[in-house]
Amino acid sequence: MATDEERELLAERFVTGNLYKLKRLTTMVQPEELAELINENKDIDYKKVFQVLDADMAIHTFENLDFDIQVELLRSFSIEQLTSTLNQISPDDRTALFEKLPEETLPRYLSLLSDEERKTAKELLQYPEDSIGRLMTPDFISVKEDWTVEHVLQYIRTYGKNSETLNLIYVTDTNGYLIDDIRVRQFLLSPLDKKVSDLMDHQFVSLNAKDDQEKAIDLFKQSDRVALPVTDFNGLLLGIITFDDVMDVMEEEDTEDIQKFGGTEALDEPYLKVSFREMISKRAGWLVVLFLGEMLTASAMGFFNDELNKAVILALFVPLIISSGGNSGSQAATLIIRAMALGEVTLENWWRVMRREFLSGLVLGGILAIIGFLRIAAWTFFTDIYGVHWFLIALTVSFTLVGVVMFGTLCGSMLPLILKKFGVDPAVSSAPFIATLVDVTGLIIYFSIAFLLLKGTLL
Amino acid sequence: MATDEERELLAERFVTGNLYKLKRLTTMVQPEELAELINENKDIDYKKVFQVLDADMAIHTFENLDFDIQVELLRSFSIEQLTSTLNQISPDDRTALFEKLPEETLPRYLSLLSDEERKTAKELLQYPEDSIGRLMTPDFISVKEDWTVEHVLQYIRTYGKNSETLNLIYVTDTNGYLIDDIRVRQFLLSPLDKKVSDLMDHQFVSLNAKDDQEKAIDLFKQSDRVALPVTDFNGLLLGIITFDDVMDVMEEEDTEDIQKFGGTEALDEPYLKVSFREMISKRAGWLVVLFLGEMLTASAMGFFNDELNKAVILALFVPLIISSGGNSGSQAATLIIRAMALGEVTLENWWRVMRREFLSGLVLGGILAIIGFLRIAAWTFFTDIYGVHWFLIALTVSFTLVGVVMFGTLCGSMLPLILKKFGVDPAVSSAPFIATLVDVTGLIIYFSIAFLLLKGTLL
Repeated sequence: MATDEERELLAERFVTGNLYKLKRLTTMVQPEELAELINENKDIDYKKVFQVLDADMAIHTFENLDFDIQVELLRSFSIEQLTSTLNQISPDDRTALFEKLPEETLPRYLSLLSDEERKTAKELLQYPEDSIGRLMTPDFISVKEDWTVEHVLQYIRTYGKNSETLNLIYVTDTNGYLIDDIRVRQFLLSPLDKKVSDLMDHQFVSLNAKDDQEKAIDLFKQSDRVALPVTDFNGLLLGIITFDDVMDVMEEEDTEDIQKFGGTEALDEPYLKVSFREMISKRAGWLVVLFLGEMLTASAMGFFNDELNKAVILALFVPLIISSGGNSGSQAATLIIRAMALGEVTLENWWRVMRREFLSGLVLGGILAIIGFLRIAAWTFFTDIYGVHWFLIALTVSFTLVGVVMFGTLCGSMLPLILKKFGVDPAVSSAPFIATLVDVTGLIIYFSIAFLLLKGTLL
Repeated sequence: MATDEERELLAERFVTGNLYKLKRLTTMVQPEELAELINENKDIDYKKVFQVLDADMAIHTFENLDFDIQVELLRSFSIEQLTSTLNQISPDDRTALFEKLPEETLPRYLSLLSDEERKTAKELLQYPEDSIGRLMTPDFISVKEDWTVEHVLQYIRTYGKNSETLNLIYVTDTNGYLIDDIRVRQFLLSPLDKKVSDLMDHQFVSLNAKDDQEKAIDLFKQSDRVALPVTDFNGLLLGIITFDDVMDVMEEEDTEDIQKFGGTEALDEPYLKVSFREMISKRAGWLVVLFLGEMLTASAMGFFNDELNKAVILALFVPLIISSGGNSGSQAATLIIRAMALGEVTLENWWRVMRREFLSGLVLGGILAIIGFLRIAAWTFFTDIYGVHWFLIALTVSFTLVGVVMFGTLCGSMLPLILKKFGVDPAVSSAPFIATLVDVTGLIIYFSIAFLLLKGTLL
């Protein structure tokens, strides 16, 4: 593979090349590389490139393109190109593409498929979105128990061309029910006269076509295989899914989690490609909800209006205090949400988590309290901004910091667990969400402590 | 694979079983499954389990265990078990394990290896941490150009047993320099008398052993292969890395990004396993830095002390305003950081991003401004908390919201790009970091607008 500079140079040549030069260039790269080049360089005239590709190269390049480019290309293809592309790309990639097309155009595209491919396509589209069925391809190799290794290898040589993977060979009974999966490795390492049944251990992992895609991610991590079989509820082998599709899903899920955590709905499309209108709508929702929640801070402060009027000095520390609560809460929430996503923390661990975060809050709050106290003391030494009651003010701020940070870590750590308990995605308890929650409570803690400590002096 | 309940039941039986029962249980599962069971159930006495495993099963189970359990097991092993385990686990897993061991114990473990394995182990440990060399295994199949397919298959059958993958076969010249990689698929699908050279396309992707592991992630995504060859600077084939190792790295990187983004240093260990002391130290650092930054808000508010004394009412909206800036900044930062991690946004796009975020800030700020205005108007209708100058106050808050949200989105989106430009990890510009930055500026915007609009009335 080329270095970054070489890739840039190559892209440059693709941009400037005429048809003849393009033809020569495309023979120098693999379809995956070509797709990557097109995906990353908006200046390449991909429609022109596709005019010079031979059929096989065109299909494999097409499979690896971004969806928006695929859709554009479909529009530009001749009916002949369209027919051959749709019939030949692998069924799982086709399902993914169909998902992105406007629904009303789907019948037209389906009508271009051969009877057999149309049947497959329709079957795959029946599975719910985000289900494993949507990632599945029905192109796999299945063999029978009583075949020899030689027979299997011969069978692969004859019928294996369309199989999405040859890394795993599936053993089915005469009715098509899955009874084992065997790595091709074993066939390669065994004597030719061995029977399939000799290689079987009757231990296999499989997914249900209706399962959620997240389940596939977990199983891939556990099982150390590059493809997994998919069955129906009865164990009938329907298809397989391969790790590269799951890697994409994994990345998408992480992106969703991260975006939700940043306090926005998941964009579902690359940042620069999503329309401005859609981006605003996905961001405005949460921002408004948080704003409405945060309005309670104005109410809370209005409630303490009298105290504020008597001691305006208290207002100076409001941002410092509420942000400390928000920051500690955001830390705790991040750690717990990620740990839950990785399966390191489950609902059953709530008590351990709570104890840990209570102690963390105490220690972290204590550290901030000491710094805060020293800062007020130091300023008093140089200025008289805090007046004669500086000690009581410093004490109020310090106690508040311990309370607010503890409340922040507890909220941040427990809320994701509580949401999960009620079937809500824990990532919803985003940093801004926690911050808003802690802001309101933080103010109440602050003014209550102030009331207790400053009664009779400042208040 | 078992369902969740079945797995729980199985774990239960592992916990309660005697040696005889354990022996029977372990024959019912795959090594990866057994490892998963042990990793997830702290109650299983894994030392007892390892007493009943046969050699092969023990090695493969061991390879899939969490590091802390591996280390514990090593301590409990007899010298004989220790020797066989260390010599037989695959070199990449061994390197990863050695990384986790206390450095002073390393020579002892190395001394138990055979001469050949020790040489390999030492070579792998020489590569820098986080380099591809550390993930590499030297167990692969390499063949020569002039061999036939039949010869290759025969060679695999004889020498392939230790190869980490048989999915890709590497072609080297007589000096061991990599000249091509061929999927085993092609050998399986080609006539037996074809030559290796007939299958070659001289197009391969390879990694340099000293490259950063992130490079491997990118290349795996692009190249659609389950293993990649690793060479030195001259192209000499040193080993291969497989996708499962890279999946782990990918997950770790995402975890680090997410944790940094939540305003804490990366924990590097699962939440429940990291020591309390270490967790506090990783969280306290950032929290204190943010606290010190946030202290500027107290200074800023102190600076506007006179205005505050004249119009305490202004203090009521401080939390609302600064949090709106923080939230919009956190949204923008999340979107940009993730888009950069996925390669959707690069430094060259800064102008497009800035234009987009400027407009977003304007629209989002406008929405919040309208809501804020309406809220103050509505409250005025029912109470007289905002006094006769409610309209001017509402105007001040609304203008401030537009300014602060715009400033937030610009900071949030530009800071990650600026950090990247200077070679700093963009994820450092975390939600809390942006919030703190925006808080201080937000106050200045607020009081400046108040000064302009309320001069002569409230101020």
